[in-house]
Amino acid sequence: MDLALLYSGGKDSSLAALVLDRFYDVELVTAHFGITDDWQHAQQAADALGFPFDTHELDRTVAEEAVETMRVDGYPRNGIQRVHEHALESVSGRDVDAVADGSRRDDRVPSVSRAFAQSLEDRHGVDYLSPLAGFGRSAVDRLVAAELNVETGPSEQIDKADYEGELRALLAEEHGQSAVGEVFPEHEQTYVLGLAE
Amino acid sequence: MDLALLYSGGKDSSLAALVLDRFYDVELVTAHFGITDDWQHAQQAADALGFPFDTHELDRTVAEEAVETMRVDGYPRNGIQRVHEHALESVSGRDVDAVADGSRRDDRVPSVSRAFAQSLEDRHGVDYLSPLAGFGRSAVDRLVAAELNVETGPSEQIDKADYEGELRALLAEEHGQSAVGEVFPEHEQTYVLGLAE
Repeated sequence: MDLALLYSGGKDSSLAALVLDRFYDVELVTAHFGITDDWQHAQQAADALGFPFDTHELDRTVAEEAVETMRVDGYPRNGIQRVHEHALESVSGRDVDAVADGSRRDDRVPSVSRAFAQSLEDRHGVDYLSPLAGFGRSAVDRLVAAELNVETGPSEQIDKADYEGELRALLAEEHGQSAVGEVFPEHEQTYVLGLAE
Repeated sequence: MDLALLYSGGKDSSLAALVLDRFYDVELVTAHFGITDDWQHAQQAADALGFPFDTHELDRTVAEEAVETMRVDGYPRNGIQRVHEHALESVSGRDVDAVADGSRRDDRVPSVSRAFAQSLEDRHGVDYLSPLAGFGRSAVDRLVAAELNVETGPSEQIDKADYEGELRALLAEEHGQSAVGEVFPEHEQTYVLGLAE
C-alpha cells in the first residue's frame, strides 16, 4: 500500500516514517509554497534515512492568509494549523492509499481532530494516519535517541523544511524582519542527519 | 527498552505489538481477575505471533464494582473503561520502561485521555504508548488483513481474553445469564491465529 508522509526532515516526521515502514510503501513528501528552497534539507534527510522523496506544491494564497492571521494573533498557532490542514487536504489528492503526518500526542499544534481525520478520509478515499498520536514527549525523545542521529539548535540556525521556515520568510518579506520575532517565540528545532549508528 | 503491552489475543492488541516490535522488547501481558482461564487463548495467540507472554492478576473488587456499574447502566462502557484504567495502573507497576495498549482512534471505549496518560507516566515513571491512537478503523482493517491471520465471529463464540469474557462470567454468576444479554450488545469479535501467510 502506498503512503505519502508529510515530511520536514525533523525528528517527529522521521520517527513516523520508521513506525510506518513495516506496513506501507512510504514516500516522504515535503509540502512547500515555493517561497524558499528549504525542501532540499528534507530531501537530504530522506536520502540519509533511505526513503523515496518528493515535493508537493501548496497554494500560496494559503501561506499569505496564514501569515496575516499570525501577524494579527501575535503568535503562530492558528496560522500553522491552517497550513497543516491545507497540506493534508492537498496531499490526500495524490494517487496513494494513505497519507500521514508526524503529529504527536503532546503537540498543541498542529493538532488533527478525529472529526477532521474522518472527514479527510471520507472525502478523499484515503486512510489518514498519525502514527505518533499515541506517543508522548518522553517516549518520542527516547526513541529518537535510540533510532536517529540528530542535530539540535535554535529554529533560525537549523536547516529544516517545516512550514515555519517559509512562513518566516514570507512574514519578513511582507512586514520586515522585526515581525518574525514578534510572532515566533525562540525554540529548539531538530534536524535529522540519518539513522543512529 | 522493555515494554508491557496489554494483550487480549484480538486484532488490535496484536497489530499494536507489530507496530512496537521495531522499537521495544515487547512482552504481551494479559491482565485478568482469575475468574476464567480465557488468558490461555491470549497465550496461544502470543505464541503464534512469536512474542513472550505473561499474565498479570488484577484486583477482583474492581471487576465486582465494574459489573455493578454495568448492570445499573444497562451497557458496558463505563465498567470496561474503569477496568482498563485499573489494568494500566496495575501493569505500570511492573519493572518496565513503557506500557502500551491496543486502543484505536475510532474506539469509544476504552479511551485513554491525554491527561490520564500523562498522569500515569508521571506517577509510575513509565512511558505510556497507544500505538494505534492515530490509526482509524479502515487503516486497522487493511493492516490486519495484510499482516494477520484472524478468525471472526459473535462475541460469545470467539475465544479471546479481553475483559469482556470475565466480566460476562461474573455478571452471569451474580445476576444470572439473562443479565449478560441485557448489558452486552451482540457484536463481532476477532481472534488472532497468527501472522498472515
